[in-house]
Amino acid sequence: MNRFVTETLSREEAIQRITSDLGFPWPLQTEEPPLTDAIGLRVGKDVLSLEEHPPFDRSLRDGYALFSRDTTGASSGNPAFLKVKGFIPMGKTPDFALSAGEAAGISTGGCLPEGADAVLMMEDSSILADMLEVRRSLQSGENIMRRAEEIRAGEKILKKGELLDFRSINLLSSFGFSSVPVIGTKAAILSTGDELVPPGTTPLPPGKIRDANGGMIAAILQDQGFTWKHLGIVPDDPEQLNSRVSEALEEQDIIFLSGGSSVSSRDFTSTTLESLKDPGLVVRGLNISPGKPTLVGGNLKRRKLAIGLPGHPLSCAVVMWTFVMPLLMALINGHERGEDELFQKVELEAGKDIFGRTGVEEFFPARIEKNRIIPLTGKSGYVGTMARAVGLVRLPVEMETLRTGEKAEVWLW
Amino acid sequence: MNRFVTETLSREEAIQRITSDLGFPWPLQTEEPPLTDAIGLRVGKDVLSLEEHPPFDRSLRDGYALFSRDTTGASSGNPAFLKVKGFIPMGKTPDFALSAGEAAGISTGGCLPEGADAVLMMEDSSILADMLEVRRSLQSGENIMRRAEEIRAGEKILKKGELLDFRSINLLSSFGFSSVPVIGTKAAILSTGDELVPPGTTPLPPGKIRDANGGMIAAILQDQGFTWKHLGIVPDDPEQLNSRVSEALEEQDIIFLSGGSSVSSRDFTSTTLESLKDPGLVVRGLNISPGKPTLVGGNLKRRKLAIGLPGHPLSCAVVMWTFVMPLLMALINGHERGEDELFQKVELEAGKDIFGRTGVEEFFPARIEKNRIIPLTGKSGYVGTMARAVGLVRLPVEMETLRTGEKAEVWLW
Repeated sequence: MNRFVTETLSREEAIQRITSDLGFPWPLQTEEPPLTDAIGLRVGKDVLSLEEHPPFDRSLRDGYALFSRDTTGASSGNPAFLKVKGFIPMGKTPDFALSAGEAAGISTGGCLPEGADAVLMMEDSSILADMLEVRRSLQSGENIMRRAEEIRAGEKILKKGELLDFRSINLLSSFGFSSVPVIGTKAAILSTGDELVPPGTTPLPPGKIRDANGGMIAAILQDQGFTWKHLGIVPDDPEQLNSRVSEALEEQDIIFLSGGSSVSSRDFTSTTLESLKDPGLVVRGLNISPGKPTLVGGNLKRRKLAIGLPGHPLSCAVVMWTFVMPLLMALINGHERGEDELFQKVELEAGKDIFGRTGVEEFFPARIEKNRIIPLTGKSGYVGTMARAVGLVRLPVEMETLRTGEKAEVWLW
Repeated sequence: MNRFVTETLSREEAIQRITSDLGFPWPLQTEEPPLTDAIGLRVGKDVLSLEEHPPFDRSLRDGYALFSRDTTGASSGNPAFLKVKGFIPMGKTPDFALSAGEAAGISTGGCLPEGADAVLMMEDSSILADMLEVRRSLQSGENIMRRAEEIRAGEKILKKGELLDFRSINLLSSFGFSSVPVIGTKAAILSTGDELVPPGTTPLPPGKIRDANGGMIAAILQDQGFTWKHLGIVPDDPEQLNSRVSEALEEQDIIFLSGGSSVSSRDFTSTTLESLKDPGLVVRGLNISPGKPTLVGGNLKRRKLAIGLPGHPLSCAVVMWTFVMPLLMALINGHERGEDELFQKVELEAGKDIFGRTGVEEFFPARIEKNRIIPLTGKSGYVGTMARAVGLVRLPVEMETLRTGEKAEVWLW
């Protein structure tokens, strides 16, 4: 297939060229579902806080709200005594203010009465008659959070494109949002190749292979907060491919062509992407391994993106994770690739030699054993290799072999 | 709150006790959706391969299928010549067999003709007239995969409880499955506490806090392949709590009580779990920080599990990830905790001292900077701390302070 890849670009060059040729970032269609329906999707706009946090002076402990200056010099040997004015129930604004020499019972999260500037922990106190014995000296601000101490009104709390996971859902709920704008970009998958049959085809007709990439691409998109539609299988027929792609792009913003592995299949995909015009085909190959025969095209005015993916499942997965996801982040945010937000990247020592070659950025499926990276080898036709991997080890362009004990970058799934 | 936690168990002891008292693993209700509707859920049964892989002798290269013994001694200086019998199109079973002295063109993934035992790569050959020039000697098996070489029929390809991500969807599609049994265990969330109001409540009434944990628990469950239902907020009223829980457990298998932070709220939860009887309340506290005031109860015969979670969002998240998820894996698989399958765990050097204490297992939210762990500190009331974390650093029970440069375990989200 090499002879058809006349020019390969690094992932970065390819993303820059597409960003420029297709006018990224695109204005995004957004929808605004209720918060819990937005779980797992991506935020469609920057979200600004409408209020401050915390909204009131808040206790961080179960104990007594008081004036810190009333405790100066207090210790177990020389306790201070304060008058207990009352108890502030959770969820209530205190209906009294404190004066010097007074304290009020308070729970963690409770609202401080006016005047109080610290909270004495339960264990540093005793109640004797109606007096509070204070056995410690407190500083102003101790065990409390001041109103607006963490976040001011108008501060950005979520960035466009972020994934709505448990952290962001928690944040949005805390800040009073009951719904959130999410990205409504539509993506479809079209599997191509004469050799493909749907996954449920049993027994497998001789010489055929099941379309395992269609569902895999869907699973990656879904995991990464994008909606998808699988449009089935197209045979290696240039006219059918063309018309199915045109038809799909009436409705969809992005189309994934999950490539047939044959040369003709790749030719047809290339011609189809070229026919999108303005600019048509933009990327004719990536300088990564696996994943070289990746094609990208699109149309600037109509804002359509078309991606031809390699047919081999591992190559397809590598391209989806290391290239397509950063590319979609560029579509959302422009040149900001957000790669470090997409992946958990760590450096670990190799537990085995990893044989690469210079001149190409390489990714190997790997597992981690005793905190060392073990590359998963196996013939390229093995279906189980990827299933046992926890992520990809990356060998940069200039690296040939990574020796046992040397450190390498792992991108965890 | 300490005085109410009379006995704390390690996560492991707690999971063992619950497993034994509630008779884990439970027989699971399963449903069998189409493969692409199962993305992100968990497999309900072990999946055995119904066929072998690969299903036929397959070429791993574009080139020529041949008899390896016909190439013995071949080199560029001394090429062998074979007769090209034909070309095997992708997706077709060859309609001819090879004899000694013959070769056939083949693509990557193509089905080898009978007799062939190796594939010569395109670049090691030329066509001269109708003869193939072979410039290399090949060994039997070179550039091919034998039928059933990787997986035999009846081999287990997925284990009950595994998450259906891009890897497993790819595997199932490859093996001819168009649907998959998924775990249909039903979980509901009930937020408890007088101080709670729904997330959309704006402006926030004085002294109230928004129920940010309900949505967060839902997001964690969903991320981890469990379905959920949020049943709203119950005030700190023992009768209402009891009846809402009983009602919920008519339909649900698991109920999460997202705890009010007050002492009374915790008391009511404890009483409610106790009333489930046989065995009722099983765990009265965990020896972890944050997350100590976790309660677990249930009913053995009716197979109901009830979990009271701490009210503080970070504590709640820590308990959900480090304890509840391994517990749900025990519910599915018995004593196999599958913790290492749940988390990406790596050991990295601390970039800052992390101050802990001995006698309790501690988890700190952290980010990674230059491959070092940086604990994220911030007052316990800060809502943004967790949002900036990429996971949790774990300090084992016996560890006090983790010094800069020492290695610690990070559990990545």
